[in-house]
Amino acid sequence: MGLKRIDVGVLGATGMVGQEFVSQLDSHPWFNLVWLAASQRSEGISYKDAAKWHLLTPRPNAISDLIVNAAVPDRAPKLIFSGLDASVAKKIEAEFANVGHTIISNARNYRMESDVPLLVPEINPEHLALLPRQATERGWSGQIVTNPNCSTIILALAIAPLRPFGIKSVNVTTLQAVSGAGYPGLSSFDMIGNVIPFIDGEEEKIETETQKILGSLKDEKVEPCPVTVSAHTTRVGVIHGHTLMISVGLQT
Amino acid sequence: MGLKRIDVGVLGATGMVGQEFVSQLDSHPWFNLVWLAASQRSEGISYKDAAKWHLLTPRPNAISDLIVNAAVPDRAPKLIFSGLDASVAKKIEAEFANVGHTIISNARNYRMESDVPLLVPEINPEHLALLPRQATERGWSGQIVTNPNCSTIILALAIAPLRPFGIKSVNVTTLQAVSGAGYPGLSSFDMIGNVIPFIDGEEEKIETETQKILGSLKDEKVEPCPVTVSAHTTRVGVIHGHTLMISVGLQT
Amino acid sequence: MGLKRIDVGVLGATGMVGQEFVSQLDSHPWFNLVWLAASQRSEGISYKDAAKWHLLTPRPNAISDLIVNAAVPDRAPKLIFSGLDASVAKKIEAEFANVGHTIISNARNYRMESDVPLLVPEINPEHLALLPRQATERGWSGQIVTNPNCSTIILALAIAPLRPFGIKSVNVTTLQAVSGAGYPGLSSFDMIGNVIPFIDGEEEKIETETQKILGSLKDEKVEPCPVTVSAHTTRVGVIHGHTLMISVGLQT
Amino acid sequence: MGLKRIDVGVLGATGMVGQEFVSQLDSHPWFNLVWLAASQRSEGISYKDAAKWHLLTPRPNAISDLIVNAAVPDRAPKLIFSGLDASVAKKIEAEFANVGHTIISNARNYRMESDVPLLVPEINPEHLALLPRQATERGWSGQIVTNPNCSTIILALAIAPLRPFGIKSVNVTTLQAVSGAGYPGLSSFDMIGNVIPFIDGEEEKIETETQKILGSLKDEKVEPCPVTVSAHTTRVGVIHGHTLMISVGLQT
Repeated sequence: MGLKRIDVGVLGATGMVGQEFVSQLDSHPWFNLVWLAASQRSEGISYKDAAKWHLLTPRPNAISDLIVNAAVPDRAPKLIFSGLDASVAKKIEAEFANVGHTIISNARNYRMESDVPLLVPEINPEHLALLPRQATERGWSGQIVTNPNCSTIILALAIAPLRPFGIKSVNVTTLQAVSGAGYPGLSSFDMIGNVIPFIDGEEEKIETETQKILGSLKDEKVEPCPVTVSAHTTRVGVIHGHTLMISVGLQT
Repeated sequence: MGLKRIDVGVLGATGMVGQEFVSQLDSHPWFNLVWLAASQRSEGISYKDAAKWHLLTPRPNAISDLIVNAAVPDRAPKLIFSGLDASVAKKIEAEFANVGHTIISNARNYRMESDVPLLVPEINPEHLALLPRQATERGWSGQIVTNPNCSTIILALAIAPLRPFGIKSVNVTTLQAVSGAGYPGLSSFDMIGNVIPFIDGEEEKIETETQKILGSLKDEKVEPCPVTVSAHTTRVGVIHGHTLMISVGLQT
Repeated sequence: MGLKRIDVGVLGATGMVGQEFVSQLDSHPWFNLVWLAASQRSEGISYKDAAKWHLLTPRPNAISDLIVNAAVPDRAPKLIFSGLDASVAKKIEAEFANVGHTIISNARNYRMESDVPLLVPEINPEHLALLPRQATERGWSGQIVTNPNCSTIILALAIAPLRPFGIKSVNVTTLQAVSGAGYPGLSSFDMIGNVIPFIDGEEEKIETETQKILGSLKDEKVEPCPVTVSAHTTRVGVIHGHTLMISVGLQT
Repeated sequence: MGLKRIDVGVLGATGMVGQEFVSQLDSHPWFNLVWLAASQRSEGISYKDAAKWHLLTPRPNAISDLIVNAAVPDRAPKLIFSGLDASVAKKIEAEFANVGHTIISNARNYRMESDVPLLVPEINPEHLALLPRQATERGWSGQIVTNPNCSTIILALAIAPLRPFGIKSVNVTTLQAVSGAGYPGLSSFDMIGNVIPFIDGEEEKIETETQKILGSLKDEKVEPCPVTVSAHTTRVGVIHGHTLMISVGLQT
């Protein structure tokens, strides 16, 4: 406890992912949340007025009166968590990385780039060895680290311990909560007493991201794990918490 | 059955209210639905492509290939049902009434105008006597008739038979289905396992519209019924069908 | 239409499955529902008083005043549909078959018996060739035909057309509606805003029943289809209608 | 903090109300939960095995291994909280009161007895003056204090501060969560996408209990508050938390 906590910021702080970052960073033993940024609409407004709070845990008092900044590097701290929407994340995150910031991003844009780690710390911390390529190939003085799609994290954590037995194929069906679609997300008209048996774009992400996360690092490259992943995604009438039904085929 | 059915059209045909009109007019013994109009986005497109269908009953085949028109009177039939959103209904409905169309409108804009009937046919058909004032006061060759707010209709139908006993006060709490908020309407994030104990603007409508519907006609004017209406509105996780809990205070 | 409709009865007529039989048999072109039986509690009472009706379609008028019989063969018609609970079906269905009735049963008790067809008419009508063995082996003058578990029917119908390509393995996750658990079935406390990721006993049924349904008939025996079926079952907050996510592995 | 905590017990500890008592008493600054009792089925079993835990907060570790006792006074502590079902509470609670225990009861059985306080501590602590009558009239060496129906507590707390203005009438509609019906309580089949607009017996309780709680104490009797309470009760698809829509008529 004698350590000084590290100043951090959150990009896209008013959205659902940003609120989750804000909530998790509150009273964190390592980090000190000092900077929030969001779209132009929220700029210059206090966080408590800019963000309609959606989480079950209360909005942390510590940041309620922080003024929301524009999403530019100016006075941002070195370490930034990004909950930006994919429609704007590519450009903004690059601007921050370019001038020396380290971005931990939840957006999908850089996940499958060959020089960007797709990190699940319990599984593939060695993938951080990709980072120097961002300096040499992109000329960035900073860097971007990404986390996987929400369902992919659960799947990868569940099957990673089976790697020593030889994972040949994975068949997964997700029952995903509505929180994963942001706010307002899915219409109540579609979800009450119903399930939606397909989530556009999600199945490809689960398949390719799982192969990258479980992949092996060779010569500063990740060789994807040659597992066949067959993913079926559904949306169910649950607020928080995805359920995954997983079958694993082992090599015998 | 030897009668010729009357050609009718629907304004705002692609929205939830418009779809309900389209569904109710299908195979109607009196009416023949020949004309659909919606916003610019749907113009020139077949109805089946323009309207994402939300009702539990299937989209009627008869109108699936009708081309959606612009919301202008041009070749529209004389009798029009309007499911327009309140943000555009005022101007468009007036344009149609001005050139001779009869508009049956679900929008709130003209409901409380003194020369416009707020009609529940089982209760106040005599209020149609207001219509000539639209010609003299507005110069319209056509006319507008409105129907009340969805909860108000239910309330008015329930208490109207008690008028002979002298209705002094009404206390009503609504439990309203999400269909009443249109599509996408309420977020599933807000509605799953939840109720929302206030609907903005709804309570005033229930109070003032009930007084007008139950009002008496004198000299081409409606004198509001002097009943005290106290309305509390809530939104509940039901797809279709409002529930009303009503207390009536009678004069004794 | 000149044909005489066949008199039929329903065993277990007051439960959810029985109500479904009653509803489907109403106004049926081939069948005439004339006899209803249920547990002692309902005996001698009119059907409308004995059965708390749970279906979305209204209770058919034609049978509302039929008096519910005891579940004994006495004056029952030859052809009987059975919606009996598995806890009593074994004994009662045998009593009826023994004295000459043909039972079409939804109960699980006889499904896997080697001399009882587990029938999906679109898939394995030839399995009816098992029936003569019931006379020779059990001494019944009647017979029992069973239908599969609800999820199994959907799965079997989906994969049966793929048989010519060689079905090697099937991986299925079900999202099953609460109606499948009867009434009162699952507690609202467990299901609101939730999914339950396991249904006890259901997964084994899906696996073994699918193999029997797709099996081939040889010498009055069904040789199970050697497909590997891996089933995961979940309960979701839907009233009616199961959803299945199916992956099929073909022989190549 | 130098005070010794008081030993307490819970009657009906395995049900929903009992679990709520157990949860609220865990780590309580005044009380020390040392004794649990339930029906014969749970007797002699550890609490963690006897009670299927239904609350969102985890089952307290401190009582997980307590052995559930029979519901007899034997070695029970002096102060007992009772979550017994109304079907057994009358007899059991009297047995405990008779031999010197103080029972704080959530059951409805004694609420309206003229010598039993129906207590909301923020509103009517002076009603405890009824207690001596239990000794003289019933011969009990102990005593029973009751708390009101769940919806009544909320209503009473909301309107009590208006007493100085003269409360003439109250009109209340409740939207009650399913937790209030215990476990398994309401069928998911009835509650998904639905509301149930009547709760049998609940409306009378809200009306009579409110009058007693707000009543004034005179000569060791409670004179009911002469307020007209009109209650409408509905059940909604919410897990925890009742919503009340309240109108109050004041004397003018």
